[in-house]
Amino acid sequence: MTPGKPQGKGVLHVTADIESRENYRHFLAIPTRWMDNDIYGHVNNVIYYSYFDTVINGYLISDGGFDIHGADVIGVAVETMCKFRKSLVFPQIVDAGLRVGKLGNSSVRYEVGLFAAGDPEPAAAGHFVHVFVERATMRPVPIPDPLRACMQRLLVS
Amino acid sequence: MTPGKPQGKGVLHVTADIESRENYRHFLAIPTRWMDNDIYGHVNNVIYYSYFDTVINGYLISDGGFDIHGADVIGVAVETMCKFRKSLVFPQIVDAGLRVGKLGNSSVRYEVGLFAAGDPEPAAAGHFVHVFVERATMRPVPIPDPLRACMQRLLVS
Amino acid sequence: MTPGKPQGKGVLHVTADIESRENYRHFLAIPTRWMDNDIYGHVNNVIYYSYFDTVINGYLISDGGFDIHGADVIGVAVETMCKFRKSLVFPQIVDAGLRVGKLGNSSVRYEVGLFAAGDPEPAAAGHFVHVFVERATMRPVPIPDPLRACMQRLLVS
Amino acid sequence: MTPGKPQGKGVLHVTADIESRENYRHFLAIPTRWMDNDIYGHVNNVIYYSYFDTVINGYLISDGGFDIHGADVIGVAVETMCKFRKSLVFPQIVDAGLRVGKLGNSSVRYEVGLFAAGDPEPAAAGHFVHVFVERATMRPVPIPDPLRACMQRLLVS
Repeated sequence: MTPGKPQGKGVLHVTADIESRENYRHFLAIPTRWMDNDIYGHVNNVIYYSYFDTVINGYLISDGGFDIHGADVIGVAVETMCKFRKSLVFPQIVDAGLRVGKLGNSSVRYEVGLFAAGDPEPAAAGHFVHVFVERATMRPVPIPDPLRACMQRLLVS
Repeated sequence: MTPGKPQGKGVLHVTADIESRENYRHFLAIPTRWMDNDIYGHVNNVIYYSYFDTVINGYLISDGGFDIHGADVIGVAVETMCKFRKSLVFPQIVDAGLRVGKLGNSSVRYEVGLFAAGDPEPAAAGHFVHVFVERATMRPVPIPDPLRACMQRLLVS
Repeated sequence: MTPGKPQGKGVLHVTADIESRENYRHFLAIPTRWMDNDIYGHVNNVIYYSYFDTVINGYLISDGGFDIHGADVIGVAVETMCKFRKSLVFPQIVDAGLRVGKLGNSSVRYEVGLFAAGDPEPAAAGHFVHVFVERATMRPVPIPDPLRACMQRLLVS
Repeated sequence: MTPGKPQGKGVLHVTADIESRENYRHFLAIPTRWMDNDIYGHVNNVIYYSYFDTVINGYLISDGGFDIHGADVIGVAVETMCKFRKSLVFPQIVDAGLRVGKLGNSSVRYEVGLFAAGDPEPAAAGHFVHVFVERATMRPVPIPDPLRACMQRLLVS
């Protein structure tokens, strides 16, 4: 992207690296909240990342049986990134699309696209890398099998 | 970085691309809040970005005279990224270091390092790209002079 | 309530002033987010209030035609209160119930109950008082008619 | 207070039940964050409560030796309330004043006043009731001695 040269009317967008909904394998509807809007009247950039970790952890729980309270092995974020294309605004509902771009021994790279309901183009897209660690020591360990299996189902080549 | 191969005891860290405090030009002390801690007992990854936009916008206000309420030209985030190295935890105070890595016509790339008070190594580091737009139309415009001047002072070659 | 003498097994609850779902007139489903959970593994008390202002402002927008971007008259919070009865936890969905307890000339008292999906008893209940003011001067003014009409529909005697 | 009859120019305030800084026993400076501002350009009402639980838990840690990670007995919120008098806005620093209004066997009522730096009058004031419970069972237990001692020092008659 060329952040210095966005263009368009009323929205910031670029035509390169646009990802459509078809590129994602799992979706979660995340309603915006009043407090998500910042002083400029749009969802604050920080909040987009809370949509990221909501769709990711929600999926690990619903499809991988992840027990956030008792698990001995947990995922910790080591890198996240987001490119912002269009504004989101309360009370919109955001469709968060998820896929897995890379699946290693103890780490996984999720790729997330955020779409305003009804919009085929993403408002934002980015990635989130989890490293799985033993909770007590914070040392990396292999991704537990049930989680790996659910990640595998979202893996794109 | 090699997210799949972090190592260390009690903290996640890598030795590559470690940035020390000397690499930043402006600092703001940001105390953590109780609510910043998540279920794992550490500051949630999302919150790190709120430290980013607090040090950045705080600097534009204090050193660039930016008027967040009345300005006709505002900065909107188009890309942000963060690499996480060590945990932060309430009630720690975070020293947020800021520099400018690239200064274009209508965009600026800030680089931010987050350090636990007293720690020479960063807990996290990343970047944040602002594009300045006319508030009414959201169309990119040149960065206003007073803001450009304060950014120039943080520019690293 | 007698805060010093709660009782129960696994949850904090009291039998007094329990409000059932039937006592509310409008509902909004609000999914919890990963970040809502705090260090104790439950939704942080602060976040409950974000559910309050989401159901309230969402209703003013959907049923009262409230324009949060352009309105000359806006509602500002002057008092809020919440009693917490049961824990909520991500990834639960919260049903936020809303009614109007008192409707004055420029102020309105909303009453909100938060229910975990499927639970007839509230996890929390409280109130939120809006005073409507002219945005430019922050001086109280009468509640605009379209908003008053939608509040009237939720008024309980 | 009479929420329907606030008055003043530029701020909402009432003259009744104004509490000055002298009424509080412990203070913590809490800088606002960019994201605290909402669409109306002021700190969102929800965020005030994050200042409440930051000054309270910060005090329990610093003056009561409270171990938020390992404690078997923790405080859970059962009731919170806030009256809003004046707007706060980023990048203001908030002085959070704390006292204890009531100290029971297993519960404590904290009273909090929030003051913009340099302002003798509170922007907001309210209370927060903690019940101490055994973490494993969530059943109320007596407040541990070191915590009780630090609360006692803030108790007003």
